[in-house]
Amino acid sequence: MTWNFPQLADIADPALTQALQHTLDNKTKPRGSLGRLEEVALTIGQVLGSTAPVLQQPQMVVFAGDHGLTARGVSAFPSEVTWQMVENFLAGGAAVSVLCEQHGVALSVVDCGVKYDFLAGLPAGASRARLQVRKAYGAERGTADSSVQPAMTAAQRDHALQHGVELVKGLPGNALLLGEMGIGNTSAASLLLARLGGLDIAVCTGAGTGLDAPAVQHKIEVLREVLALHAAATTPLDALAAFGGFEIATMVGAVLQAAHERRVIVVDGFIATSAILVAHALQPLVVQRCVFAHRSGERGHAFMLQHLGVHPLLDWGLRLGEGSGAALAWPLLQSACAILRDMASFASAGVSEKADHSVSVD
Amino acid sequence: MTWNFPQLADIADPALTQALQHTLDNKTKPRGSLGRLEEVALTIGQVLGSTAPVLQQPQMVVFAGDHGLTARGVSAFPSEVTWQMVENFLAGGAAVSVLCEQHGVALSVVDCGVKYDFLAGLPAGASRARLQVRKAYGAERGTADSSVQPAMTAAQRDHALQHGVELVKGLPGNALLLGEMGIGNTSAASLLLARLGGLDIAVCTGAGTGLDAPAVQHKIEVLREVLALHAAATTPLDALAAFGGFEIATMVGAVLQAAHERRVIVVDGFIATSAILVAHALQPLVVQRCVFAHRSGERGHAFMLQHLGVHPLLDWGLRLGEGSGAALAWPLLQSACAILRDMASFASAGVSEKADHSVSVD
Repeated sequence: MTWNFPQLADIADPALTQALQHTLDNKTKPRGSLGRLEEVALTIGQVLGSTAPVLQQPQMVVFAGDHGLTARGVSAFPSEVTWQMVENFLAGGAAVSVLCEQHGVALSVVDCGVKYDFLAGLPAGASRARLQVRKAYGAERGTADSSVQPAMTAAQRDHALQHGVELVKGLPGNALLLGEMGIGNTSAASLLLARLGGLDIAVCTGAGTGLDAPAVQHKIEVLREVLALHAAATTPLDALAAFGGFEIATMVGAVLQAAHERRVIVVDGFIATSAILVAHALQPLVVQRCVFAHRSGERGHAFMLQHLGVHPLLDWGLRLGEGSGAALAWPLLQSACAILRDMASFASAGVSEKADHSVSVD
Repeated sequence: MTWNFPQLADIADPALTQALQHTLDNKTKPRGSLGRLEEVALTIGQVLGSTAPVLQQPQMVVFAGDHGLTARGVSAFPSEVTWQMVENFLAGGAAVSVLCEQHGVALSVVDCGVKYDFLAGLPAGASRARLQVRKAYGAERGTADSSVQPAMTAAQRDHALQHGVELVKGLPGNALLLGEMGIGNTSAASLLLARLGGLDIAVCTGAGTGLDAPAVQHKIEVLREVLALHAAATTPLDALAAFGGFEIATMVGAVLQAAHERRVIVVDGFIATSAILVAHALQPLVVQRCVFAHRSGERGHAFMLQHLGVHPLLDWGLRLGEGSGAALAWPLLQSACAILRDMASFASAGVSEKADHSVSVD
């Protein structure tokens, strides 16, 4: 409750918006005929402060952490899949690895609190390419079971938030793509949505990695219990500590820092959006810097996006996480910039403009 | 009515489908968790006959033609914009040019019947890079005004269809992206939808490049008149001749040939889909080879896609045509192939699979 972040600046700039709109309207196409692509161009132009924006050195960061609540059987996969998938990300075999490779997006993984020692057996001070170990204090076993106690202490939460701030400071480029891995983290995201969105937990809870109906029902009951135990955790930061996880808290810090630095933030699915939900509750202006890649198949995601008042690019029923949807959508953002930069104007191409009056003359 | 094309083979192959599904299900992700991306992977795998499909040398072909019906004031832009935009495609300044450049998609333009001589002043037999002149017989001034007579004669239509077949035979690679340019061609597409889809022209007609409400109303009245004049043109080929245009007819031939050769056909918006509508009416199996890039903002497109029973990848309110939506969506098809080819399996990555029973055990 002590953690604080400098107030984000309001980047809305009517003169720039007008200049961007003017640029788009003079391209060789009917006005508005590129639909959502023009909206994305306006957003990115605003974030990067340019009518000819260039996305540079995009960084996919996969935030990973484990969840004590998995002891209550809320996930279809065992906890060890978290570290196994981290190894898969690093080896290049996961969906997010393949998609980042396709698009030349740099991928790194941050161990925010995985129940595994990725450096075990290595010499003291050793590192592994593409992996950053930034475990919060005492996060070696993941979060505590939130059905028994808060997932994190306030100090742990603040440590995780600060890690997020620091790691973004060290990233090159002007775009951050959010990824995550953590068996059990749809539960944390559902809890955050229920508390911060004021929704019943039943509408916030989905199948995660693939629960069947009785297991979803069980998950809802466990989550309802967790909410009741932490009824007093009503502020964004209290809720974050109560429900976890370390990867979400680290992502919240990263998002605030990226927003502060005016990076374009590409938001993936339910978990990544839950970090935006918390950041938005702290500082609503964070959303000015975000492009929402997709509406996932996970039940609560549509409500989360509604709560934020935002519209995603794709509606593909993705429910993998990892940042896979953000990586998939990445070239669409590049297209938006290319349109602004590289299309000819009516004047430069010698193309006739629309008649003043579009009413037909026979 | 004499034009004929060999019967397309049914490429549905249950053994291959099963092999593709098995490949997807063993990738390191929960089953089905990549949603639409997995559907696209299944489609492309089927078309290319492989569980590790590789899209090669993609070809964007922009089919261009003029429409005599523009004399009736059905478009917001003057006819000369057709040739001006062709020059813009060739110069690299149009949206489709920029997007093809972004993705390494080869772009060529076919003059199927533009009211302009792109080779005027050049030595006899000269050619221009990226432009093919394949005007149908007597198409030097575009189609006839379909409110007076059929847009094309049967011989002209067959000539245009044959041009489409021939030009695809000369293309490298295994993927064809459909683009088009022709002031007035939303009218032709609306007429084809009304006739072949059995819908009232009012629900098939939209604003095209940007008509206002009275002008749309006028367009509907003109199109209703055209439909009445050609009430007897009920077969797909008769309707195609009656309503035009040369670019649509050439596209129909190209689509049938591409389907015959098992190329992946990437369908753009309303006009490109109208060519699929005609091809589908002739040979329904053509749709097996298609990926529909987007649902456009042009009113009739959603109904056209419904008629074909297909679901597009993007819903972005695009209404530019040119092939811009197909080019925009192209990397999503590449992603689908990359997932099939490059992701690790559970076994190869050493990742634990889902528990047999997903019901939780406390």
